[in-house]
Amino acid sequence: MQFFFSKIEDKKALFSSDEKIHLTKVLRKKTDDLIKIIDGTGFLYTGKIINLKNKNLEVEIIKKEKKEKKHNYYLHLAIAPTKNINRFEWFLEKGTEIGIDEITPIICKNSERKKINIQRCNRILISSVKQSLKYHLPKLNEAIKFDEFIKQKNESKKYIAHCKETEKIKIEKDINASYTVLIGPEGDFSDHEIDIANNNNYESITLGESRLRTETAGILATHNIYLLF
Amino acid sequence: MQFFFSKIEDKKALFSSDEKIHLTKVLRKKTDDLIKIIDGTGFLYTGKIINLKNKNLEVEIIKKEKKEKKHNYYLHLAIAPTKNINRFEWFLEKGTEIGIDEITPIICKNSERKKINIQRCNRILISSVKQSLKYHLPKLNEAIKFDEFIKQKNESKKYIAHCKETEKIKIEKDINASYTVLIGPEGDFSDHEIDIANNNNYESITLGESRLRTETAGILATHNIYLLF
Repeated sequence: MQFFFSKIEDKKALFSSDEKIHLTKVLRKKTDDLIKIIDGTGFLYTGKIINLKNKNLEVEIIKKEKKEKKHNYYLHLAIAPTKNINRFEWFLEKGTEIGIDEITPIICKNSERKKINIQRCNRILISSVKQSLKYHLPKLNEAIKFDEFIKQKNESKKYIAHCKETEKIKIEKDINASYTVLIGPEGDFSDHEIDIANNNNYESITLGESRLRTETAGILATHNIYLLF
Repeated sequence: MQFFFSKIEDKKALFSSDEKIHLTKVLRKKTDDLIKIIDGTGFLYTGKIINLKNKNLEVEIIKKEKKEKKHNYYLHLAIAPTKNINRFEWFLEKGTEIGIDEITPIICKNSERKKINIQRCNRILISSVKQSLKYHLPKLNEAIKFDEFIKQKNESKKYIAHCKETEKIKIEKDINASYTVLIGPEGDFSDHEIDIANNNNYESITLGESRLRTETAGILATHNIYLLF
């Protein structure tokens, strides 16, 4: 089974140019062919190619199925993008494969990377959703400074993962199954950032005894919560 | 803290040329400098630079400390190298970070990649051990055909992870804390391979409901066992 990704409007599928090329040039789909489409909002669509001329590709939706959420928790990961962007992109791919709902890139005191290309990151998320046959696209927010992120109010269980030797707990099963987890940059969160986080109800957690890279910590936190549910 | 990797013989550290260049040209270490060395066998050494001329670097071991194993299980992962070698190398790096003891690349019916460069893979393992401040280097075996691997006798708990819809169990805590886990190639294990494995006491396991890439399955199996201990 193969999924294609598009926006759906008025029973028509609106593909990106990449996806159009993939469908027409690589897979050589023809008029009347049926394809499976997702739009990342929890539905699986069946589309029929009704017109395919030059660069025009018209696909009409002939069936729409509601798919259940694959996991029964909500995980928002706020993570500092790594200096080497490949590592961050790897996190996006793997996090999506395992099960993540919302991602906010945070810029911390020790962040060596202060900017990321949100469009490119979204393409990676879409590719991973398609590859892993999922129906929900994680929400990717714009990058935001740590200080601003920490002030945002929400009712989730809040954790911060850092390397400083302090009292730490393990990730626990939350009654509301809703989590916000902070993962720091290569140089770790600063002492001040850890203090602010703790004062804003973010508990310090341990992900094991190994010293983990940023992107590995992100994946292990995601998998840890996945295994709890 | 920074670790350097070398073989240790007769109280001397024998560095690779890469590591020599890193020490002398990049970090500009000098005679009498002390450095921390690991050899991947569970010890931490303190070495003193006693001679450094041209390409000669002599380091004498002045202290040897036994370090405990970081994890109290034994995990042997037999995994099909991915077509895109970067993905396999990511697995090597992350598996080492989390905690893995032995890796055997297996060549399966659906393997698109039949060969790997063991030296290069070993360099990645060493780099990951240094980065994550571990003392044990995972043992990397030569690539072997699936049929030959499956015949090898050992007393560990045996699992196979595949995508075919059959009865599957979760990874369980083993009384001997010793595991062998099989992870298949992009095209999955063949039905015949799954049968052979099941007949040789490899139980089919689930790693969750997502369709996982080979390297993700390898990492999640490793993390799953890590969390059990």
